[in-house]
Amino acid sequence: MSKYWSATTRKLTPYVPGEQPKLTKLVKLNTNENPYPPSPKAVAAMQAELGADGATLRLYPDPNADRLKDAIARHFTMHGITPAHVFVGNGSDEVLAHAFQGLLKHERPILFPDITYSFYPVYCGLYGVDYEQVALNDDFEIVAADYLRPEACKPGGVIFPNPNAPTGLLLPLAEVERIVTGNPEAVVVVDEAYIDFGGDDIPTAIALVAKYPNLLVVHTLSKSRSLAGLRVGYAVGHPELIEGLERVKNSFNSYPLDRLAIAGAVAAMDDVAHFDATRKAVMKSREALIADMAKLGFETLPSAANFIFARHPKHDAATLAVALRERSIIVRHFKLPRIEQYLRITIGTDEQCLALLAALREIL
Amino acid sequence: MSKYWSATTRKLTPYVPGEQPKLTKLVKLNTNENPYPPSPKAVAAMQAELGADGATLRLYPDPNADRLKDAIARHFTMHGITPAHVFVGNGSDEVLAHAFQGLLKHERPILFPDITYSFYPVYCGLYGVDYEQVALNDDFEIVAADYLRPEACKPGGVIFPNPNAPTGLLLPLAEVERIVTGNPEAVVVVDEAYIDFGGDDIPTAIALVAKYPNLLVVHTLSKSRSLAGLRVGYAVGHPELIEGLERVKNSFNSYPLDRLAIAGAVAAMDDVAHFDATRKAVMKSREALIADMAKLGFETLPSAANFIFARHPKHDAATLAVALRERSIIVRHFKLPRIEQYLRITIGTDEQCLALLAALREIL
Repeated sequence: MSKYWSATTRKLTPYVPGEQPKLTKLVKLNTNENPYPPSPKAVAAMQAELGADGATLRLYPDPNADRLKDAIARHFTMHGITPAHVFVGNGSDEVLAHAFQGLLKHERPILFPDITYSFYPVYCGLYGVDYEQVALNDDFEIVAADYLRPEACKPGGVIFPNPNAPTGLLLPLAEVERIVTGNPEAVVVVDEAYIDFGGDDIPTAIALVAKYPNLLVVHTLSKSRSLAGLRVGYAVGHPELIEGLERVKNSFNSYPLDRLAIAGAVAAMDDVAHFDATRKAVMKSREALIADMAKLGFETLPSAANFIFARHPKHDAATLAVALRERSIIVRHFKLPRIEQYLRITIGTDEQCLALLAALREIL
Repeated sequence: MSKYWSATTRKLTPYVPGEQPKLTKLVKLNTNENPYPPSPKAVAAMQAELGADGATLRLYPDPNADRLKDAIARHFTMHGITPAHVFVGNGSDEVLAHAFQGLLKHERPILFPDITYSFYPVYCGLYGVDYEQVALNDDFEIVAADYLRPEACKPGGVIFPNPNAPTGLLLPLAEVERIVTGNPEAVVVVDEAYIDFGGDDIPTAIALVAKYPNLLVVHTLSKSRSLAGLRVGYAVGHPELIEGLERVKNSFNSYPLDRLAIAGAVAAMDDVAHFDATRKAVMKSREALIADMAKLGFETLPSAANFIFARHPKHDAATLAVALRERSIIVRHFKLPRIEQYLRITIGTDEQCLALLAALREIL
């Protein structure tokens, strides 16, 4: 604690990300990265931007990243999305931060699930946003009705991940819509980091954006587009919401996306074939892993994400995590109420999944 | 204005960066970019990180960017700087934003010059920081004594660029030190975006960091290291101040620097030969340009930056800027009190400087 810190800074409890070990020999199944490399077209676009001498890097990037907004709008054109519906940022965490400050901070508390992305209460601390945590039901599901309040106690905003993290459970689009229509005076943020693993047909709430002025959908290129190392995220919503985010962004940092990130992200969005092939491969591995884990006695929640959330009725989760780590496999364990007996395991390559299963057989 | 925006967002007046035209035929002397390409070693490091298939990009970067903190500490080791003295961010604008929120927001107003980087009042609006603008003297100089207040009205913090923008004037290090020692209870942020153009021996306040717990010095790789397109900035200060910034950063975005930016920035910091050659070339061109402009009747403030701030007693600055633009040369004109008769002109290559002079001869 320092007298030089602001009052807010003194009170902060910062977010702790999953470990990013510097050793490369580990089977890293702890931060939901994609096991496949990014689109070769994205790599080629970054190589082209870099050129032989990096000469363009001496110049600032486009502060609005218009090329990227165009590419994202192109990708969702069937849902009536235009570039004016798109906001981009330095990873979806930055996009979420701006949404908390710009759209979710009001007089009344916001709502989010009790078991969810643990960054949400941290943003609330940073921006002084009041919140109420809404319990998932006993099956760890988000219950839409719990977010519909009488007029006198409507929330100042709502945010939840879909699929939820770390459960991996998907809320059907009709239920998402109930939450949006039930809170017309507040912004509902649907944090869809993992939505592309939700089925061959992607159940994204972007399909609802043209209908509702209070819906903001947040995506990332870190998961389904294998670009966690490049830091690109975006939000899709009514242009009025986007303008609010732009006001915050332009009061914070004019140029959040660098030239290489813009070039790579544009090509990644445009390469639908690679995107489809890799997300489907992950979903296929996921189903195989869930079946194989079941044979070992694990109970896994139905996952619509690139990870599974699993428990073993006879083995302590923390002990299992330590035993896996001794075998050079890292998974995520949250020492939190209700979920402390679960492990969150990222879907790796089939080879990595086999290594995981072999290690578990050894341990159990 | 939207009912969905937070109260803060409604009141914001966002920063407006210099134009980033998408045409490449312009002689672009408006946003103080370096006319020379970045270090070839930085380009090679980014190519190596990218590799043939971009495979590392599927993984998150190091959230702490330790390699970069090490490289920066290495660069300033003669001043007793260690990695614990270093904070890194997505451009110095992001670093400054975190400093406003984490270190400059207190009960009492902060002080900064009336003519300075116009992002400062924007940050104050974003975070609700009160401020008082301190007038530069008639020679556009920062006067250290004006920042030394009686106990009853000490500021909550102080921030100023050195060299100042858009004047380019350098405050001698002894005067910087007076402001730091005169405000021991408040953080003094010295924003040294342009300091590397301040002389063969760089007059950086980093030399004072080991002596003062309340001094934070902010640098960028955008100017002297030709990497405006990569978005990397850093701050150097007492580990207690750095810890405050880390708390804010880790409550905002765990991974602000992507893998390519970290790789490029490390190599750029290490390539001192390229850094010295290009910054000295810019300083040489600057002195030649000031002399040539004087022959055309321009009055230029003594510049310690990679731009000049000049006026012509017989020609209106706004009119000159328009006439230059008609000749495909863009410079920056601020329609602001006291400086509306000045143009801020970035030092280009010698060829670009000659093009500027030829255009001015045509216009005058």
